[in-house]
Amino acid sequence: MKDKHLIEKCLETEPIFKGRLLDIHRDRVRLPNDSESTREYTRHPGAVAMVPLLPDGRIMLIRQFRYPVRKVMIELPAGKLDPGEDYLTTAPRELEEEIGYRAGEFILLGEIDPCVGYSDEHMWICLARDLTATTNNLDRDEFLEALPVSLPEAVRMATDGTITDVKTIIGILWAERYLSRKAR
Amino acid sequence: MKDKHLIEKCLETEPIFKGRLLDIHRDRVRLPNDSESTREYTRHPGAVAMVPLLPDGRIMLIRQFRYPVRKVMIELPAGKLDPGEDYLTTAPRELEEEIGYRAGEFILLGEIDPCVGYSDEHMWICLARDLTATTNNLDRDEFLEALPVSLPEAVRMATDGTITDVKTIIGILWAERYLSRKAR
Repeated sequence: MKDKHLIEKCLETEPIFKGRLLDIHRDRVRLPNDSESTREYTRHPGAVAMVPLLPDGRIMLIRQFRYPVRKVMIELPAGKLDPGEDYLTTAPRELEEEIGYRAGEFILLGEIDPCVGYSDEHMWICLARDLTATTNNLDRDEFLEALPVSLPEAVRMATDGTITDVKTIIGILWAERYLSRKAR
Repeated sequence: MKDKHLIEKCLETEPIFKGRLLDIHRDRVRLPNDSESTREYTRHPGAVAMVPLLPDGRIMLIRQFRYPVRKVMIELPAGKLDPGEDYLTTAPRELEEEIGYRAGEFILLGEIDPCVGYSDEHMWICLARDLTATTNNLDRDEFLEALPVSLPEAVRMATDGTITDVKTIIGILWAERYLSRKAR
């Protein structure tokens, strides 16, 4: 078997805590050298983030408070998948909920695993374009502020320390590559 | 107060689970509109990732199995800070433990928050250069394989879907910008 010297096998999984968001498990695993260890992690339904390209060429970022880090972060709009949902169903719903736009087209820029040490979260990142304004419709415990910026300004923010959120740094840098390739 | 319309305040914190890795809390919070909600998250000691620039100009990636996502991932070497430790103390220790190199210089490329939805993890990303080989010394439950690649190859892998780990995508794209600016 390929990668036998790296792969760990599940021997037993123990549910530890299931809350509104977190679904913590502790598994007993067989290591590649046949000894045993434990792995702790949360299960996650997956998520999608959008790089919304406005009609005037700017991209729409948002500012929102993130309680775990106790900071207002600059981010791409994003949302979790409902159980069994495809990211292309989630994307238009979350885009409209968070920033009040509909997109004519979603283009997959790539996929990321944000937290491989302790979460199975997988995230799709899309360029959202041909946008038309509707109205946003936030969840009752969600508060955010729109922050439209030009693409060069977004790239500067993704490389000078202004933005530290990973999906946002990656989404902006991937969008820049995608759009500059298209422009050639 | 700036951002009063966004900031959430802690009313009470409840420790839920403390394991080998995870330290789960559920907090009762006051929302900007004065209603209440709960937030679940893990506390994390922080981490540092290194982009190791080998004497031949390649960068040293590693392949390692990540149990939560059940995949062999291509990553930068990285490690967690010991309590109270500065990332510049962690970086040389983890670099030598994981890939068996000492660096003459660590240059901070930037900082990320990998998982703002449910973790306070903060990560520093450094370029490690002037490398000299020693011997690696992995933790007893750590298994990995070295994967040296050229910088253009690493950039390709960080943009074509081969690499999905966030610190690795960002570290490679930041290192490329830093080194191409230097080269001008």
